[in-house]
Amino acid sequence: MTVRQMLEAHPRPAIADLDALVRCIEACGDCAASCTGCADADLGEDDVREMVRCIRLCLDCADVCGATGRIVARQTEPDLGVIRSALETCVVACRASHAECRRHAEHHEHCRVCAEACNRCEQACQDLLAALG
Amino acid sequence: MTVRQMLEAHPRPAIADLDALVRCIEACGDCAASCTGCADADLGEDDVREMVRCIRLCLDCADVCGATGRIVARQTEPDLGVIRSALETCVVACRASHAECRRHAEHHEHCRVCAEACNRCEQACQDLLAALG
Amino acid sequence: MTVRQMLEAHPRPAIADLDALVRCIEACGDCAASCTGCADADLGEDDVREMVRCIRLCLDCADVCGATGRIVARQTEPDLGVIRSALETCVVACRASHAECRRHAEHHEHCRVCAEACNRCEQACQDLLAALG
Amino acid sequence: MTVRQMLEAHPRPAIADLDALVRCIEACGDCAASCTGCADADLGEDDVREMVRCIRLCLDCADVCGATGRIVARQTEPDLGVIRSALETCVVACRASHAECRRHAEHHEHCRVCAEACNRCEQACQDLLAALG
Repeated sequence: MTVRQMLEAHPRPAIADLDALVRCIEACGDCAASCTGCADADLGEDDVREMVRCIRLCLDCADVCGATGRIVARQTEPDLGVIRSALETCVVACRASHAECRRHAEHHEHCRVCAEACNRCEQACQDLLAALG
Repeated sequence: MTVRQMLEAHPRPAIADLDALVRCIEACGDCAASCTGCADADLGEDDVREMVRCIRLCLDCADVCGATGRIVARQTEPDLGVIRSALETCVVACRASHAECRRHAEHHEHCRVCAEACNRCEQACQDLLAALG
Repeated sequence: MTVRQMLEAHPRPAIADLDALVRCIEACGDCAASCTGCADADLGEDDVREMVRCIRLCLDCADVCGATGRIVARQTEPDLGVIRSALETCVVACRASHAECRRHAEHHEHCRVCAEACNRCEQACQDLLAALG
Repeated sequence: MTVRQMLEAHPRPAIADLDALVRCIEACGDCAASCTGCADADLGEDDVREMVRCIRLCLDCADVCGATGRIVARQTEPDLGVIRSALETCVVACRASHAECRRHAEHHEHCRVCAEACNRCEQACQDLLAALG
């Protein structure tokens, strides 16, 4: 709710449809938190050796979602080339994390939850890319 | 909701009471996003020269909340000294941002919203510090 | 020097030629620091109103370089699609920041220095992309 | 060298002695990169199960050094309370990472290199705290 309020109070025009923008900023924040938590949960598992790829991809995805969420939150003097490229990288990182988390979803509930967060974030980035035209 | 699900699925014991932990992680994420948005909204205002201190403190606060939210989200092999110190810095950064945003709350709605997010985050960090004992 | 030592001590094979990798990680760190400093110096200038676009693009570039530098520093279980996309976004963000900083290079020395850091980082990312094949 | 050039070109007075400031910003960047690399190298080791605490503390330390380096790089409208608290947290995080990395320094060269980077960063933060008065 804070994200929408902040955007509605912004002095400059939004870079895209407000609903798509809010969903994307919130999904990036949610996915960054999930991936940080999933990497840490993997690290605490007895089968940590099987989870090495998942940890690595979740760390990458958390970094990308964190940066993308900040960039997309900015409405002042936007450079659409930078924004589009950041969103495209976020799609790629979420897809990679999602694919790996899904492989472990049956035996690690945190991977199942994280896979869904990655999937929602990928979709929200795709939708914002479409809304940017 | 994802934050709680991730913590409930974590293989290791939580570092503190789950409610206090969830509130703190979510408040850090919310405050980081608000401060990033507020600094950017300030930058887009006609009176940007009056907003320089607000921009600076919001950038600091976004950085601190981002780091603190990640640290507090980790439950594996915690170092309570690091966690406590991070939470204390987050309290200080939120308080500074809150004080400056409040000064502009009457003429900039985004500062009013951001001041509230900073206040909630300061409180959530204080509560988690208390819960850590 | 630390970056090279860390990579030489890594148990897994490097994702690419070590020289290209070291240069890219160092250039990302340098550019992130320059852009953080340039946005802050702009904010302290009397003509801050003319520097709004420069501040915004430098904040974006600092975020992208920070994330890219972390991703490229990781050698364990790499996903080359994620790495390539991150490097491509870094090229786009550095180019945008470089172009804007250059416009102010004559009257603001920090913009001149920052433009050079952006340019070196763009080049180091391009070189690493080429080395990745 | 870029860090010093950026600070010398800054329109506002530096928050502290320039040498102490430059050393601290550079040490934070170096330590953040080392800790990111060390966590990743640990993850690639055959004895990853013994390295879980090292990974976790290095991830925390990288987050804290990243945020602290950005905050200390800013000279415009500083809040010394925020800056001091950030530096104190950085000292605590570096000390924790250093202690754990040292335990593994004999069998993992990357831990030996990382322990030194943590130590230099702790010292540089202490020195800047002293220079701030």
